[in-house]
Amino acid sequence: MFDIRQIAIFNALTPQEAREISPYFATERFTKKEGIFSEGDTSDWFYIVKRGKVKITKLSHEGKEIILEIISPLDFFGGIAVMRGFPYPANAIAMEDTEVLKISRKNLLSIMDRFPSLMYCLATNIGDRIKGSHETLKSIALEKVEARIASLLIKLCDKAGEKVPEGVAINMKLTKQDIAEMVGTTVETSIRTMSKLSKAGLVSSKAGRIIIKDLDRLKSLT
Amino acid sequence: MFDIRQIAIFNALTPQEAREISPYFATERFTKKEGIFSEGDTSDWFYIVKRGKVKITKLSHEGKEIILEIISPLDFFGGIAVMRGFPYPANAIAMEDTEVLKISRKNLLSIMDRFPSLMYCLATNIGDRIKGSHETLKSIALEKVEARIASLLIKLCDKAGEKVPEGVAINMKLTKQDIAEMVGTTVETSIRTMSKLSKAGLVSSKAGRIIIKDLDRLKSLT
Repeated sequence: MFDIRQIAIFNALTPQEAREISPYFATERFTKKEGIFSEGDTSDWFYIVKRGKVKITKLSHEGKEIILEIISPLDFFGGIAVMRGFPYPANAIAMEDTEVLKISRKNLLSIMDRFPSLMYCLATNIGDRIKGSHETLKSIALEKVEARIASLLIKLCDKAGEKVPEGVAINMKLTKQDIAEMVGTTVETSIRTMSKLSKAGLVSSKAGRIIIKDLDRLKSLT
Repeated sequence: MFDIRQIAIFNALTPQEAREISPYFATERFTKKEGIFSEGDTSDWFYIVKRGKVKITKLSHEGKEIILEIISPLDFFGGIAVMRGFPYPANAIAMEDTEVLKISRKNLLSIMDRFPSLMYCLATNIGDRIKGSHETLKSIALEKVEARIASLLIKLCDKAGEKVPEGVAINMKLTKQDIAEMVGTTVETSIRTMSKLSKAGLVSSKAGRIIIKDLDRLKSLT
């Protein structure tokens, strides 16, 4: 059985406590590109990615998308809205076939009442995310596209990097469209920039994954 | 004497508890444009604005500034770094003559241990801020400058609006430079856009304050 203490925000629980609260979690599966919730929906559920990837997005009035965050296994999403009781402020969409754990708002709040340490873990996790969001904000507002893409690749390398003979592979299937939507540019510019970085020997791609071949030179662009 | 329960994150304390923890807070004054802390400094203090305004900024490599947040009286700043024990991730600068309350990291953490409800208030407050940061991110990445400035003015109107005969005044001294740095554009564009909105009768200014004369039309631009 899945031990919920694998999830960072629950890892301070004792085995006994983890067993007690486990029944409150349900599993749900989503196929690639399927919506999990939409901006404005009532925030009934707190989600944790068990397997797969989820993107948190917002749309402009003309329907252009920006990816605010990518949620990897064992990370939660929807948490802020659930805690505050306001509608989800963004969309959550499966980026690949994804399995999530979910717990209802009511049950989450009563578990938090029993285990105040959970609140600390949640608060610090949200704090880390706002730090990331501020970094992205700075980068989109002030830096050129090349520096923005380089920063993004370095961030993803930290988050989902895997050593391979050629360098570090980003363990995530990312399209040029995804990259464009994470740095606030067009697909054309994203393609052009990735191809420039590739020709310069900084990155390559293999079986749909991006490989960072020269992290130091990539860092020098940011 | 200043009652710390006026500060949202402390308002669940009893009068007795508030009196007990008050001695841990010190007052400090900063003059306009003075730095309170810089990105990378050790996060020794948790701050609350008592009077005045503080801007939280980041700089690009070429020294261009983006304003991530404006902290008004009774709001805190520096909290995430203090909770996590990492260096301040941004700069804090007084926008006008400002008085802050500050408490050391060690004392804040021990107060939080005693009053777990504080953690909940902090977490939800940080949650609200990440929501704001995601809104700004979407706006800077996807919207045109006019829509970004309109969104900013509406947000400031919510936060620091004051009814006046002509409409709603934003109770904050904001330069065109500040506006540019909040929406990620140049001063020239900020001046041109504000002047366009002013000619169209949507905004005006009086004694250094911006007045929203037609909120509905401003909303229609976003």
